[in-house]
Amino acid sequence: MDQTRLREILKSYKDGQTELDQVVADLRHLPFEDLGFAHVDHHRALRQGFPEVIFGQGKTPEQVGGIAARLLERSSNLLVTRTNPESFEIVRQTAPDAVYHESCRAISVRRDTSIHGHGTIAVVTAGTSDIPVADEAALTVEIMGNRIERLFDVGVAGIHRILSRRQVLDSARVIICVAGMEGALPSVVGGLVNVPVIAVPTSIGYGASFNGIAALLGMLNSCSSNVTVVNIDNGFGAGFVASLINRG
Amino acid sequence: MDQTRLREILKSYKDGQTELDQVVADLRHLPFEDLGFAHVDHHRALRQGFPEVIFGQGKTPEQVGGIAARLLERSSNLLVTRTNPESFEIVRQTAPDAVYHESCRAISVRRDTSIHGHGTIAVVTAGTSDIPVADEAALTVEIMGNRIERLFDVGVAGIHRILSRRQVLDSARVIICVAGMEGALPSVVGGLVNVPVIAVPTSIGYGASFNGIAALLGMLNSCSSNVTVVNIDNGFGAGFVASLINRG
Amino acid sequence: MDQTRLREILKSYKDGQTELDQVVADLRHLPFEDLGFAHVDHHRALRQGFPEVIFGQGKTPEQVGGIAARLLERSSNLLVTRTNPESFEIVRQTAPDAVYHESCRAISVRRDTSIHGHGTIAVVTAGTSDIPVADEAALTVEIMGNRIERLFDVGVAGIHRILSRRQVLDSARVIICVAGMEGALPSVVGGLVNVPVIAVPTSIGYGASFNGIAALLGMLNSCSSNVTVVNIDNGFGAGFVASLINRG
Amino acid sequence: MDQTRLREILKSYKDGQTELDQVVADLRHLPFEDLGFAHVDHHRALRQGFPEVIFGQGKTPEQVGGIAARLLERSSNLLVTRTNPESFEIVRQTAPDAVYHESCRAISVRRDTSIHGHGTIAVVTAGTSDIPVADEAALTVEIMGNRIERLFDVGVAGIHRILSRRQVLDSARVIICVAGMEGALPSVVGGLVNVPVIAVPTSIGYGASFNGIAALLGMLNSCSSNVTVVNIDNGFGAGFVASLINRG
Amino acid sequence: MDQTRLREILKSYKDGQTELDQVVADLRHLPFEDLGFAHVDHHRALRQGFPEVIFGQGKTPEQVGGIAARLLERSSNLLVTRTNPESFEIVRQTAPDAVYHESCRAISVRRDTSIHGHGTIAVVTAGTSDIPVADEAALTVEIMGNRIERLFDVGVAGIHRILSRRQVLDSARVIICVAGMEGALPSVVGGLVNVPVIAVPTSIGYGASFNGIAALLGMLNSCSSNVTVVNIDNGFGAGFVASLINRG
Amino acid sequence: MDQTRLREILKSYKDGQTELDQVVADLRHLPFEDLGFAHVDHHRALRQGFPEVIFGQGKTPEQVGGIAARLLERSSNLLVTRTNPESFEIVRQTAPDAVYHESCRAISVRRDTSIHGHGTIAVVTAGTSDIPVADEAALTVEIMGNRIERLFDVGVAGIHRILSRRQVLDSARVIICVAGMEGALPSVVGGLVNVPVIAVPTSIGYGASFNGIAALLGMLNSCSSNVTVVNIDNGFGAGFVASLINRG
Amino acid sequence: MDQTRLREILKSYKDGQTELDQVVADLRHLPFEDLGFAHVDHHRALRQGFPEVIFGQGKTPEQVGGIAARLLERSSNLLVTRTNPESFEIVRQTAPDAVYHESCRAISVRRDTSIHGHGTIAVVTAGTSDIPVADEAALTVEIMGNRIERLFDVGVAGIHRILSRRQVLDSARVIICVAGMEGALPSVVGGLVNVPVIAVPTSIGYGASFNGIAALLGMLNSCSSNVTVVNIDNGFGAGFVASLINRG
Amino acid sequence: MDQTRLREILKSYKDGQTELDQVVADLRHLPFEDLGFAHVDHHRALRQGFPEVIFGQGKTPEQVGGIAARLLERSSNLLVTRTNPESFEIVRQTAPDAVYHESCRAISVRRDTSIHGHGTIAVVTAGTSDIPVADEAALTVEIMGNRIERLFDVGVAGIHRILSRRQVLDSARVIICVAGMEGALPSVVGGLVNVPVIAVPTSIGYGASFNGIAALLGMLNSCSSNVTVVNIDNGFGAGFVASLINRG
Repeated sequence: MDQTRLREILKSYKDGQTELDQVVADLRHLPFEDLGFAHVDHHRALRQGFPEVIFGQGKTPEQVGGIAARLLERSSNLLVTRTNPESFEIVRQTAPDAVYHESCRAISVRRDTSIHGHGTIAVVTAGTSDIPVADEAALTVEIMGNRIERLFDVGVAGIHRILSRRQVLDSARVIICVAGMEGALPSVVGGLVNVPVIAVPTSIGYGASFNGIAALLGMLNSCSSNVTVVNIDNGFGAGFVASLINRG
Repeated sequence: MDQTRLREILKSYKDGQTELDQVVADLRHLPFEDLGFAHVDHHRALRQGFPEVIFGQGKTPEQVGGIAARLLERSSNLLVTRTNPESFEIVRQTAPDAVYHESCRAISVRRDTSIHGHGTIAVVTAGTSDIPVADEAALTVEIMGNRIERLFDVGVAGIHRILSRRQVLDSARVIICVAGMEGALPSVVGGLVNVPVIAVPTSIGYGASFNGIAALLGMLNSCSSNVTVVNIDNGFGAGFVASLINRG
Repeated sequence: MDQTRLREILKSYKDGQTELDQVVADLRHLPFEDLGFAHVDHHRALRQGFPEVIFGQGKTPEQVGGIAARLLERSSNLLVTRTNPESFEIVRQTAPDAVYHESCRAISVRRDTSIHGHGTIAVVTAGTSDIPVADEAALTVEIMGNRIERLFDVGVAGIHRILSRRQVLDSARVIICVAGMEGALPSVVGGLVNVPVIAVPTSIGYGASFNGIAALLGMLNSCSSNVTVVNIDNGFGAGFVASLINRG
Repeated sequence: MDQTRLREILKSYKDGQTELDQVVADLRHLPFEDLGFAHVDHHRALRQGFPEVIFGQGKTPEQVGGIAARLLERSSNLLVTRTNPESFEIVRQTAPDAVYHESCRAISVRRDTSIHGHGTIAVVTAGTSDIPVADEAALTVEIMGNRIERLFDVGVAGIHRILSRRQVLDSARVIICVAGMEGALPSVVGGLVNVPVIAVPTSIGYGASFNGIAALLGMLNSCSSNVTVVNIDNGFGAGFVASLINRG
Repeated sequence: MDQTRLREILKSYKDGQTELDQVVADLRHLPFEDLGFAHVDHHRALRQGFPEVIFGQGKTPEQVGGIAARLLERSSNLLVTRTNPESFEIVRQTAPDAVYHESCRAISVRRDTSIHGHGTIAVVTAGTSDIPVADEAALTVEIMGNRIERLFDVGVAGIHRILSRRQVLDSARVIICVAGMEGALPSVVGGLVNVPVIAVPTSIGYGASFNGIAALLGMLNSCSSNVTVVNIDNGFGAGFVASLINRG
Repeated sequence: MDQTRLREILKSYKDGQTELDQVVADLRHLPFEDLGFAHVDHHRALRQGFPEVIFGQGKTPEQVGGIAARLLERSSNLLVTRTNPESFEIVRQTAPDAVYHESCRAISVRRDTSIHGHGTIAVVTAGTSDIPVADEAALTVEIMGNRIERLFDVGVAGIHRILSRRQVLDSARVIICVAGMEGALPSVVGGLVNVPVIAVPTSIGYGASFNGIAALLGMLNSCSSNVTVVNIDNGFGAGFVASLINRG
Repeated sequence: MDQTRLREILKSYKDGQTELDQVVADLRHLPFEDLGFAHVDHHRALRQGFPEVIFGQGKTPEQVGGIAARLLERSSNLLVTRTNPESFEIVRQTAPDAVYHESCRAISVRRDTSIHGHGTIAVVTAGTSDIPVADEAALTVEIMGNRIERLFDVGVAGIHRILSRRQVLDSARVIICVAGMEGALPSVVGGLVNVPVIAVPTSIGYGASFNGIAALLGMLNSCSSNVTVVNIDNGFGAGFVASLINRG
Repeated sequence: MDQTRLREILKSYKDGQTELDQVVADLRHLPFEDLGFAHVDHHRALRQGFPEVIFGQGKTPEQVGGIAARLLERSSNLLVTRTNPESFEIVRQTAPDAVYHESCRAISVRRDTSIHGHGTIAVVTAGTSDIPVADEAALTVEIMGNRIERLFDVGVAGIHRILSRRQVLDSARVIICVAGMEGALPSVVGGLVNVPVIAVPTSIGYGASFNGIAALLGMLNSCSSNVTVVNIDNGFGAGFVASLINRG
């Protein structure tokens, strides 16, 4: 809520410049900045205390560039997910320090590198092919000010791999677990630790993997009680929630 | 193919009692015993060298009883799956040594207890609730003349449980792996051994388990290459194939 | 891992009573207590520092009673989910202080009521019909030692309902959001706060709600980045993870 | 029914030029103009009092051009949906005043700009990416002679956005609500107004959005009773029905 | 928004009894009546000018009775959908004029019978088995003050049935079209009229009707542009929206 | 179309008793007999030359009885499908010669036993459990005046069973092929003959048979080109079409 | 079965040149011509009395060309479905009279144009976009020696279109009905005639048409009893079965 | 488990260089070789006694090349599945004897050609289009040291084709059965033999084949008890398990 405007309305009423009925009517409809194609929501940034994020899919490079430029006027850090090199070209005209992350098709601007998270966030993948999604999660975790530990290609078909790296799991405050195919890794990891595990199904696989449905269902039915799930390939969401938990 | 009849036809032709055209016509249509409601297929018993099996679902107690009586005239062992106490009452009028297995709703008659399998078959379950399906598999394995080892409630959320019992897995010639919910156990077991693993999804779970679909998809997408899959809750099929493999 | 046994093995080796090869072999297979139908996993209780939990579905009253009795020898608090009055009758023979929660069909024993969570956990429902699932979540949250705040029947069709109770949301460390039908509540709640929101789809609805699939999909696709999801009707899982987050 | 022809048949009968039996036979089969590949249905235009509409998908540019030319002989306004620039090139050879709408891939010819609707139709979207579908709806609404108000990017994750623009909703006679992902916007909007809300799910999203199924299911299960739904991405249908309601 | 309370807050501020900061804080959280298990939303009744409606599914008879009693203190008309005789028994203790509608399992109290709709609403069904859903729609239409016309069992397999009753369709301001199985009726009806058609798929059918999915999909894909769709078996929703349209 | 009425209208016009405009208006709306809850469609009986059929599902015994009584006034043969003993009790009050078929839950009245079909219709099932659906098909085939040949329990797992009975297939004019589980029988039968094969999937099976979906999909994808498919468990439909083909 | 070879074997036995055991063994395994990548099945051609058909999908141009050349040595007519111009180029090197049908991507060779069917087959489509599938059906019908009548773009949204062309339907012996979107046309057509209607769902549509699933389900649930269904877009199958029926 | 390291730890303890507590801690975390993007699991090769296998999908050519080079230092045989010519170019820089298999997009290196399997493995396909998947299975079978017999294009629509080649089936120790469309072949083959049949559904087909789902469901519901199933198009998995069975 726009307090400046709100206080003006109230003061104007107290000063007798506005009638009560008018105040009641005014309060019902507060103005809102309008870019034409997207409401830029600065309040949200304040409310959540995190970098601005643009969901790039379905937006033209011009739209991405326009929103990014505006957001960077007020925010130190910016993340654009599911975007492309064309959008990056436009963003870096305004922000020369922007970085393009090819594996997860993201743009980041990180001007504030302070650490906000209390512990370490572990990002774990079942296979090599799950790494792009894990990279999106890791990038989110880092730009939101967290220490991170990566543990890749430790799928359950070679259970000794994850067991031999248990130290990483044991020292984490939150674990992001990325897996495609049967999506069994979060159940195993969840059973080894007593911290929250955020499971990210990936669309890796073929045939009856149905682009990640098999992994998604596996994770929703996990027999480990400390597992919650985000959408297929949603590395960003997992990184975002993990950061929230790590700040608490 | 009914060789006795075939040889008669051929001899009759050689003896000049039948014309060539008649022989050709006769050969196309061989007779077949008919019970009225079910063709009792003795050839199949001979061909596969195994006990007779009746799929009880959708058959009336009278149908089960009738088929069972007829089959037991020629076969030592009999298994009726997905049946009920009513059918059992009728079957044991003919076969007083029949046994009803309540947990997996099966009837067995086992008059020949010789061992045909070379090794041991391990039957493993993820949870306590998967036991009825495992019991159907175990009953099938036993009636088909195999040594068996049970390993129940060793799901992946407590990975040390299966690891601490690896000796059972290591000494098996085939492993039947029964699991509901996310169905992750076959992937872990498959990675620990170098023998075939037959995965049986169960309908245990709720919500997004969709009566076993989640487990089924997880198993079909297993990252362990030695896993094959049978239908949801099909303990019998798993036991049957395991026995075939163990005889080879 | 069973350290007593492990230390004995090692000492026996150091004392020269065991050969090196034997030690290596011994270490690969550690013994494990076996109840016959369920491995009682005390390590897990220690590992996770939480009450023991029995998933009641698919277990007979006798199984539930047997496991419960054994667990209560070592644990102060116990929760049995998805159970029934028959199981309760058996449990309270051993534990007269056990309580049966009819709305969510759970049994609880709570002998240790100390508080472990740092903040408050809010449990929010969209409709009156979602309350049984919310009750399971709330019971879990309480038995795990957390302060709780309930906010029921604040679905999005009357958006002023949730807005007028924002104080509850603002003061929570974690929010559990329970909704059936279109499952839109977590998106709205997620946009109002900057803490993790755990969304629980319920099977409430009819027709194209497909027993909770509509709500589940809605939550997985939430446009609020702080939302993670558990299985349909899985109030326990949501309460468990919320407690983990609140302890961090 | 072709009244001219019908009246001729009847008169011919009254004049004695046709026998009764012949009249009865004639009446059963009325002739119909045939373009070869598409029956041009002028009656429908008369019956519904609206512009002619061509569904462009699956039609060649030549087919679109041929039908368009013929329709424009009798109708002032024309709309071609789901078409492409190739078809536009052919259409504008006949109709130089045709306009191509790139965002929603539509062609319009609007020679009659009179207003038929009594009130205003609001077109609302949850996100920026939903705009192409909203544009198809808006174009339909306009060519059918309605006043329109647009309200874009007011998704439920920032509930203050829609609340701060309630004046637009309050002044509308019908609301078209376009949303992808979880499709929650129609439920919130529906709760704020007492006019019909036509919900249009879009295929925006990824993973478990299943190309709009999640949004579609969410809308069908809306807890707001004034919501009806059209097919995924069917902006035209929503605009068409909204116009019908606004004329009533 | 509760204007009385709002005006008090403002006046108190103007009178100097409250500080500006306190006013700002107060405005953010407005109180709300709480029944314990359900927020009774009187504002909604005012806002929409319609009878109060209780969705009975998942509510105990006591809950239904309690909410009903409270609502009837302020509202003349009441509708309870998806309920049962047990709830009716409790409701009529408070409201002796309540009526139970067996075919659609609804309770109605209708004390105000004034007509608000401008035209007639036609309720059409494809088959005899669809009548219960049509009855729910018709009851809603009537209690909301509309003239109604019923046209039952006019499915498309006997196309002359609907054609011979076209007068009913021609004189309607809105048409509710109820159909199961293939759900084709709305497409035919939609092509015959130029008013909005609200299609209600029913769960009538078997096999590949999948409890109404076939009809639902058919209606969503209708080739008639004036068709919108509500949830499977949602007669109430169709009646509600039809009434809104008829008032416009 | 009601010719008597039509001819009256026309004659009245020719006689000068009616104006042209009135005739045109009259012709648009022809009267139709109405039973209150179901239009009894005598024209359809005439048009198709077959017995009257009542789809019993979702109809009360009173509705079934009422429609049956009325239809039997004009038709010799009657079939009621998906009905129950309660409906039969009412039907046989009017028609003492009615017969109840328990296996397929149908009522038949057959007063005209003349043969209309040119050849024989074979009804084939894969298993014993498919027989109820086959019985519905066979009953339909018989009441519509066809010679019939039954061939039950000849599923593809024992391919010699169907091969040894090829004479039955070879002598049929149409074949109805009923199968559940994987639904493979129509493909094999289709490859053995050069007549139309109507495949009826049944809901027999469990787990991934999904109540007949597996069989339905198998049949729709049959590699035999002479196979068409009807709904799951739709024995009546198969019998009806087979009879039409056999009359041609 | 290869009678020549069979007779030789039998004669050789009668002549004493072969022993009985050898004959029995020989009879079990009859030789079969082998092209290397496809068994060319001449028996099938003889058995079914129809042109040879090659399913082109998934075959290389070389495979199509090789099989076609071989088949044309013995058969007058040939049809290749789901093929492409590359395969056509190779086929016409062997068969200069081959024709490529672009709309349905088929190759035909028709050297024998005699008529085998007794009546006329009508091919009807709901929309213009369904024509390619109808063309495949029509081509099949023609090459199999039938008279044909086309009736395109007569979908149910303009019901007068199909009604005004009833003469075509009334004079057909079989009707092929091709429709996408909601697939309602076969139900209407089926109700107008008393001959078999073969319904072909097409993948025309978008969103919830799910590439033809909506149309497929609609047709399987048709309330007209004379409708059977083939696979989505399977014009060939419909034409094939229609031809079989028309020959009967 | 890394025995060298383990023995060092133990000896160091016995020698008094390490304290007991340190040994216990050390044993919990064993080191593991790390390639950076993929853990190369040599133990797995030893454990399973088979060639190394790389799942190529989702890996860059550089990743494939790197892993291949490393594996070939210790293993004689290598298989890369679901790969491409680009990866092959890199692999053959290290291994000039590598072979690219175009039909199944695989790379093989076979330096050890000894035979390990006891019997013959038959690879059977329903159609010509299923051959690429069969080739992947065959390649796997060969590189794992088995005798193989191919039997292609013997689908069930021409049942004599498979019957005339029964000798191949009769002499196999395991059968791999590859089929798309309705996937009926494994049921027929399974009924003819008494050895394990591994069914591989393929994505061959169109429309309601749903990219292999129809075939997958058909196989899971096979009425032949000796059938197990692998993922759609998973020729490798089938070959792998068949080889394990053939070694037993």
